[in-house]
Amino acid sequence: MSIGEKIAVIGLGKAGLPLAGVIADRGLEVIGVDIDEKRCRAINCGENPIPEESELTPLVKKHGGRNLVATTNYEDARGCNVFIVIVPLFTDEVNNPDFSSLESAFRNVGTVLKSGDLVVLETSVPPKTTEELVRSWLEEESGLSLNKGDFYLAHSPERIMTGFSISRLREFPKVVGGVTRESGEKAFEVYSEFIPNLQLVSSARVAEFIKLIEGCYRDVNISLANELFKIAEELGIDFYEAREYANHEYCHIHLPSTGVGGHCIPVYPWFLIKEMERREKWDYARLLRTSRELNDEMIGYWAEKIVLECLKMDKPLNRVKICVKGITFREGVKELYHSRNLALARLLMEKGLDVHVYDELFGKDEVEAMGLKYSEPDEADLVFECAGLRITRGRGR
Amino acid sequence: MSIGEKIAVIGLGKAGLPLAGVIADRGLEVIGVDIDEKRCRAINCGENPIPEESELTPLVKKHGGRNLVATTNYEDARGCNVFIVIVPLFTDEVNNPDFSSLESAFRNVGTVLKSGDLVVLETSVPPKTTEELVRSWLEEESGLSLNKGDFYLAHSPERIMTGFSISRLREFPKVVGGVTRESGEKAFEVYSEFIPNLQLVSSARVAEFIKLIEGCYRDVNISLANELFKIAEELGIDFYEAREYANHEYCHIHLPSTGVGGHCIPVYPWFLIKEMERREKWDYARLLRTSRELNDEMIGYWAEKIVLECLKMDKPLNRVKICVKGITFREGVKELYHSRNLALARLLMEKGLDVHVYDELFGKDEVEAMGLKYSEPDEADLVFECAGLRITRGRGR
Repeated sequence: MSIGEKIAVIGLGKAGLPLAGVIADRGLEVIGVDIDEKRCRAINCGENPIPEESELTPLVKKHGGRNLVATTNYEDARGCNVFIVIVPLFTDEVNNPDFSSLESAFRNVGTVLKSGDLVVLETSVPPKTTEELVRSWLEEESGLSLNKGDFYLAHSPERIMTGFSISRLREFPKVVGGVTRESGEKAFEVYSEFIPNLQLVSSARVAEFIKLIEGCYRDVNISLANELFKIAEELGIDFYEAREYANHEYCHIHLPSTGVGGHCIPVYPWFLIKEMERREKWDYARLLRTSRELNDEMIGYWAEKIVLECLKMDKPLNRVKICVKGITFREGVKELYHSRNLALARLLMEKGLDVHVYDELFGKDEVEAMGLKYSEPDEADLVFECAGLRITRGRGR
Repeated sequence: MSIGEKIAVIGLGKAGLPLAGVIADRGLEVIGVDIDEKRCRAINCGENPIPEESELTPLVKKHGGRNLVATTNYEDARGCNVFIVIVPLFTDEVNNPDFSSLESAFRNVGTVLKSGDLVVLETSVPPKTTEELVRSWLEEESGLSLNKGDFYLAHSPERIMTGFSISRLREFPKVVGGVTRESGEKAFEVYSEFIPNLQLVSSARVAEFIKLIEGCYRDVNISLANELFKIAEELGIDFYEAREYANHEYCHIHLPSTGVGGHCIPVYPWFLIKEMERREKWDYARLLRTSRELNDEMIGYWAEKIVLECLKMDKPLNRVKICVKGITFREGVKELYHSRNLALARLLMEKGLDVHVYDELFGKDEVEAMGLKYSEPDEADLVFECAGLRITRGRGR
């Protein structure tokens, strides 16, 4: 089957650009829309703006400025008949979702939407966002009606992981669900052109929920690993040894950490927690909330461990030079959103300790611009390696 | 290697007897000790007292009364040089462990223990039980010293599951860890005679912990499934559909339930929770406690659903004949310990509802002896199937 579609991908970030690249590589014409002018210019020159995503580089090189054209102007997407929206959804300081970037994207899509077009949301969102908010934004701006069959609307949650996004898109199962039955079928037909492992589910709502519960599974299980790690330490037991032998086909205990960072896992549970609170189902998300709190509180646990280690040194506590090594939320990805490692460094600073940070992805200037002190691990008295959760001695000043 | 050991298995219950059968089937001589005289007689006549364990039947038939001899008298085990203890450990009404049956078994073993003997505990226990309590009971009764190398002491947690215990013993990985290094090595050598997939870990303490954290993983993940199920129902989402597509190699969302019953999963988290509380680490087992509470509270959720369904019927609420179908803690196993299904039936009775129960493993007399009313599902107005979590209409009286 050849659909002859022209596809707009709205949002060329870490999730959107790999998808745009994969679609372009299937020979389809892609218009990418992003608010970042510099990013668009790079893409049109064939330059990959996400270096961690190495498999993306040849795709952008081959298709950028050819059948993958990036633009800041929604008008350039007017000729498209498929609109895939994959812009970030942030949460505010009390963990409520901030829909402003989504609303802006969809209202812009609404202005160029025509009869018969398909719109798909890929951003992970609170339940029913696609069928309620997205639908109303699109209908208001376009004057079209979903119920009358004027256009199609579906949800297909991205399942990428920076560094592995191309293989995720080409191999990993991807689900899609429509707000109407016809929308689901239409989206399945279009996505089948570029997603090999595609699964149609019964509704957009189910598709949204699938992505959220995956994140909840991860968050709760990381919190379980952190709790069992604390207990093992208290009992003088090597957690990693116990975990190795406890895990088998029916047991999947995760790894302990300083908490959970990034845009995904620490955010999705809140979508369900806040929705249940809004419905006054105060007890329906108790485990999700407890896990969220426990993961965020892990920096307090590590701060105490670090202080206890400092106390063993023959120096006043506030003169022990501490180096927090690795400040990104995940090793190897230059991204600080909700980084618990960075939060740990700041927590230690608040306690009046002499804290420095080091991360091979950041230069001294970048570190200092964040209001932090920079140090090579070797120059510190004590080094906390965030990835390995190891406290070691440096060589001092 | 031929060890020529004579092995005593203390406790011929659902965990002990399958182990004794497997050891006997490897050609070793086994003395089984149990407090239940009737059970011992049956075994010695070649009769399997655990009918759900079908693979055990030929083993007991072949070896019972021959190289698997059951007795109530510890004196009959005096000639043994390996003592494997696998008696139940119950918890009291506030979830503290009740060590009385363990203490009694080990003090009895202590009276027949000789220099050079090996003792292995298989019962799942709170951390450090083997190295502290068990060791002291054995040393006090025998006058021998573990530190002087007079005897060997190890822990190897049973991992059986009623109905699958023989294959579990023959295929599933089994860990063993010694209180001393020599004890671990000795236990590994002996167990290698009859356990094909054996793993030596660094200590008895780690072996104990491995079993507990497996149970915690299950309990927390069942509680997560229950929570996500409640949220899905609230949102009008088919949880089972979402679960099917959410699960993949990195995501293992469990099934919802009426809670968790039996001797294992609902008990093991308390061993860690209570130990952390004893150490005044109040916050170290918060997730485990929350999960335990949520699972136990699920009967309240189901009771409300059942009442709401009854209200739809054209009868006074207390005249709706309700049948709770399936009262055992797990389908197909005639065992009621911590059965949440039974607890649900009693909770509905306390509310003044007309509750009957049905279970194909229990006769009318057995049900009535528990102070419950019996009914065939067909004769009820409303049936709650505990295994499938389905509320259906019966044909009424």
